[in-house]
Amino acid sequence: VAKVTIVGAGVMGTAIAWPLTDNGHQVRLVGTHLDDAAIESCLKRGQHPRLPGRLPSSVMPRFVEELPASVADADIVVTGVSSPGVRWVGQQIGPHLRAGQVVIAVTKGLEVSDEGDLRILPDVMTEAWPATLREKVPVAAIGGPCIAGELAVRRETCVLFGCPSAAVLQQLAATFRTRYYHVWPFDDWIGLEICAALKNAYAIGVGLAEGLPQRSDSRGDGDVPWHNLAAAVFAQACREMAEVLRLQALDPGTAYGPAGAGDLHVTCQGGRNVTLGRWLGSGLGLAEAQRRNAGETTEGVDTVRVMDRALRLWQQRGRAGESAFPLLRTLIAVLVEDQRVALTPAKFFGGEAVTVPSTSAC
Amino acid sequence: VAKVTIVGAGVMGTAIAWPLTDNGHQVRLVGTHLDDAAIESCLKRGQHPRLPGRLPSSVMPRFVEELPASVADADIVVTGVSSPGVRWVGQQIGPHLRAGQVVIAVTKGLEVSDEGDLRILPDVMTEAWPATLREKVPVAAIGGPCIAGELAVRRETCVLFGCPSAAVLQQLAATFRTRYYHVWPFDDWIGLEICAALKNAYAIGVGLAEGLPQRSDSRGDGDVPWHNLAAAVFAQACREMAEVLRLQALDPGTAYGPAGAGDLHVTCQGGRNVTLGRWLGSGLGLAEAQRRNAGETTEGVDTVRVMDRALRLWQQRGRAGESAFPLLRTLIAVLVEDQRVALTPAKFFGGEAVTVPSTSAC
Repeated sequence: VAKVTIVGAGVMGTAIAWPLTDNGHQVRLVGTHLDDAAIESCLKRGQHPRLPGRLPSSVMPRFVEELPASVADADIVVTGVSSPGVRWVGQQIGPHLRAGQVVIAVTKGLEVSDEGDLRILPDVMTEAWPATLREKVPVAAIGGPCIAGELAVRRETCVLFGCPSAAVLQQLAATFRTRYYHVWPFDDWIGLEICAALKNAYAIGVGLAEGLPQRSDSRGDGDVPWHNLAAAVFAQACREMAEVLRLQALDPGTAYGPAGAGDLHVTCQGGRNVTLGRWLGSGLGLAEAQRRNAGETTEGVDTVRVMDRALRLWQQRGRAGESAFPLLRTLIAVLVEDQRVALTPAKFFGGEAVTVPSTSAC
Repeated sequence: VAKVTIVGAGVMGTAIAWPLTDNGHQVRLVGTHLDDAAIESCLKRGQHPRLPGRLPSSVMPRFVEELPASVADADIVVTGVSSPGVRWVGQQIGPHLRAGQVVIAVTKGLEVSDEGDLRILPDVMTEAWPATLREKVPVAAIGGPCIAGELAVRRETCVLFGCPSAAVLQQLAATFRTRYYHVWPFDDWIGLEICAALKNAYAIGVGLAEGLPQRSDSRGDGDVPWHNLAAAVFAQACREMAEVLRLQALDPGTAYGPAGAGDLHVTCQGGRNVTLGRWLGSGLGLAEAQRRNAGETTEGVDTVRVMDRALRLWQQRGRAGESAFPLLRTLIAVLVEDQRVALTPAKFFGGEAVTVPSTSAC
């Protein structure tokens, strides 16, 4: 039996409690200062406000004040804060960690260095840690298609765990894996994390295509969907995710597996990213689309902002040409520059005029 | 201006008339003996019974009796019959073809030889032709995500054209390409055709996962979807399509591009294949699911039957192991052997217990 402390009572952090408690582990769910209402609901009603069903009864919900003690005596710490909270959570847990403990992160996001290298959030989270602590406490991450609300009713789900240490990876997989939460140890954790962030951005792109028929200038055909274009966007999204990995000297194939195409597929089924895309595709401006979309900035928008900066740096350094990433450029135009949606499918797949060799078709 | 004769007035064959007439070509739409009602509707009301909007006014609808003359004086013949009609259409058009003409097929399907080699439908269509005719008249094919009803309202659509002759490919692309019908010449037409058929089969698989929450034994969680599992199925489907291509000594990458992942994505948005899968996933037996699904055998079911035979041959010859193609095996169990749906996600992605190297994750 492991003592597991989840830091951050968002839907994904909380949902991880189901497989862990089903495996008999002792789970403490510690909210951040933003999670007081969720923790209170868990304590009083045994329910998370944004998850179906009842929290497993053995889960111990705790307020942020108990974070230090809850981290100090844990075997495994799961960090489940939102991406802007990643530095904060690293600073909070760092002082209480010691050798023998393991951290696993569910937060999705990206940063980019001044040199144009993408930085995954586990590295951002630990950047303020002393080097000795980074050596002592391994950090892992989770990718692949997993909607929290489905995990919380024990729907079968396939995820990938990544970690620089193969031994830790096997231990974590064995700890979390249940008959419904299927865990694959995956050996490219950087590619896994990059795809986990990019898929939120590209799901907005799929949403753009899906929203187009609702545009006021769509000539009365608004009841005919635009799945053809959305599917082309989906395929181009996978291709661009692969190209990002290639530019980072990582295996592009990760983009075509469960961490890329699979996670993008599930992200297109609903949620704030694809919904924001649909509002924008239907003709709303960015401010109005975000307002209708619960007013929050989605993780996909943050990722597009990061990729905007990355793309500029790649072009400055000659790592990407001006015709590369046509879909990402549309996302930047819409989400950073607040331009009207204009997808450019003729630029997809290397450009319509050229013959596509099958080896580069993906 | 080209004279184009479309043989077969199904939705896809007919929808091709939109880009062709928009490009100023002379289009004759010739029904088969099964299409009399559709041709009559086109003639009398200027409308195809299963497509939105009005048929372009310059299209000339014709009954099957006019097939010989309509083929004989065409520059391009589009064959748009359903897959069981492929031999028939080859026999019908063959005697009237001559050097200088080109045939392009939109029908999707597969056969398998006694040696376990997959045969694409253009080869089946032309098998009864004299060798001299096969040399004289090039045959091409269309793949990629394209729902006919969207093409018929000129929704932007990206497709791949394949043909053994690069010159013919460029000519066809230029003939069909419009501002909304984007055409990529693609250099692996066999892989293109295999994916076009397989995606129908695997869309049934995605439907199985989507239908599961409606099962009577789903413990009252029927309102929570199963997108996580469907996304894992989607990723595994892409992986299995790639593996099929690899076994046929073709580029597996085709399965991860618009012809594979893209076309699978659009096929999962609706239509008879994914709907059949959903009925089966919800717990209905094969006969009842097919009855509710308009009583027709879907192309995906035919493809699963072909792949059942192919897989047996591959195993007999040691080309595939017993753990290969776990998703296809589920499809065979459900659609050929009428077994209850039991997806096996733990067998996906090489098997849950192993560490997935990133290069094989897709």
